Amino acid sequence: MPRPSLTRFGVSIEQDLIRKFDRFIEHAGYGTRSEAIRDLIRARLVEEGIQDPKAPATGVLALVYDHHKRDLEDHLTALQHDHHELIIATTHVHLDHHNCLEVILLKGSAGAIRDIGAALASFKGVKHSSLNLTTTRDL
Amino acid sequence: MPRPSLTRFGVSIEQDLIRKFDRFIEHAGYGTRSEAIRDLIRARLVEEGIQDPKAPATGVLALVYDHHKRDLEDHLTALQHDHHELIIATTHVHLDHHNCLEVILLKGSAGAIRDIGAALASFKGVKHSSLNLTTTRDL
Amino acid sequence: MPRPSLTRFGVSIEQDLIRKFDRFIEHAGYGTRSEAIRDLIRARLVEEGIQDPKAPATGVLALVYDHHKRDLEDHLTALQHDHHELIIATTHVHLDHHNCLEVILLKGSAGAIRDIGAALASFKGVKHSSLNLTTTRDL
Amino acid sequence: MPRPSLTRFGVSIEQDLIRKFDRFIEHAGYGTRSEAIRDLIRARLVEEGIQDPKAPATGVLALVYDHHKRDLEDHLTALQHDHHELIIATTHVHLDHHNCLEVILLKGSAGAIRDIGAALASFKGVKHSSLNLTTTRDL
Repeated sequence: MPRPSLTRFGVSIEQDLIRKFDRFIEHAGYGTRSEAIRDLIRARLVEEGIQDPKAPATGVLALVYDHHKRDLEDHLTALQHDHHELIIATTHVHLDHHNCLEVILLKGSAGAIRDIGAALASFKGVKHSSLNLTTTRDL
Repeated sequence: MPRPSLTRFGVSIEQDLIRKFDRFIEHAGYGTRSEAIRDLIRARLVEEGIQDPKAPATGVLALVYDHHKRDLEDHLTALQHDHHELIIATTHVHLDHHNCLEVILLKGSAGAIRDIGAALASFKGVKHSSLNLTTTRDL
Repeated sequence: MPRPSLTRFGVSIEQDLIRKFDRFIEHAGYGTRSEAIRDLIRARLVEEGIQDPKAPATGVLALVYDHHKRDLEDHLTALQHDHHELIIATTHVHLDHHNCLEVILLKGSAGAIRDIGAALASFKGVKHSSLNLTTTRDL
Repeated sequence: MPRPSLTRFGVSIEQDLIRKFDRFIEHAGYGTRSEAIRDLIRARLVEEGIQDPKAPATGVLALVYDHHKRDLEDHLTALQHDHHELIIATTHVHLDHHNCLEVILLKGSAGAIRDIGAALASFKGVKHSSLNLTTTRDL
């Protein structure tokens, strides 16, 4: 029996299209069509939602940097402390002799997270950065 | 009554999530939930499908270029003739004093379309290029 | 000799990185490092520029649709006429028995182009849509 | 004085374009043009590099999930243990009453990281997932 918060609706679809979707679902490992469709809906809503700089968001910022660069770690730490109210946690990995991976988890407005992400990415010695934003509001 | 090729299935979903999706649907202008969900499914299948370099695909390549660059138009035309079996049609627009937009419609394998797109983009004088790929197989 | 509008500056870079970039340049078909770097710069500026809904932009909207859908072509045409000041030209291709490709070239603010793109994509019968935006201002 | 591993080359560019790039550089916070250009080059190389499923890569997978879903955490943990050779570390955050964020750091081939990412994303209860891939080989 569905939980009280669940509802149900019907989707009409071409037989050919649902066959292709079923193959996708099986390959991707989904248990049911409903679960796969809920994931498509949520991904689309998040995609829209994070366009709004004021949307409450969670960010995962991954920085690869050269830890031999003098002062870089001090700068990274200083900037993070300046924005400590945005930063939840940091995980650090030694990738190889030169490269470190620092993953910074952030919580705040989408705009504020993007700004600090850009600031950290532009430091000398940071070789690559990528930011994933999610809005839990839309999930 | 649905056409013979249509089928119907049920989706169970949290009430809160379907409310948000209904707002998205209304804003985007969809007539029904089914239509919106079919679009999400097709977009996802195409996204997967075009990863395969052998997938039959349609490409729309948009090039912005400086028509003052000597020889550029000759080069563009020559390369297109070398691949005439891939090229369906070309539309040309004079954007401003310097810039032209050339939109090239292509049909062939996803890999072959990507290759010719990269070759055209690298010509001197081509200032910006973007390529959209669709696989009608997955629609 | 460079044209008067050209200038020159030096880039310092790790030997290992420029070696990898040279391999990329050769594979992509660029004639010079300068040309490849100008393309990277322009692509990055356009990426930023189109975030601004007011930026003057050029759009290439590709729609794949089922031409058997009664009324769809009338609707598409009507909406395009309502926004004729945005639409430069349209190219139409018969892809196969069911599918047509319609490529619509647009010129206007980035926001207005996105809005009409979303409206056209949501029509019943439109199976796939993709929009490329460029800002000539940033090229 | 540059370190032995550094080299230098000249870029010719339109004055108008370098003016726009300098504004971008200042806004983004880069100290020098060289640093900004090295970042553009590395980002482009990584973009190409991660297309190769065999490329050695680092992945940051962010999952938002509902921790009330019975068994989900057991399933997530079991799958991670099955692939323990790929997983470096995991960080967990309680976002709100319903939602958890789990960030999983992975190291292995780009293809293997994508596969485990897809498998974890398809679990019931996982509401959103995003995967960032970097190839240190190309940095």
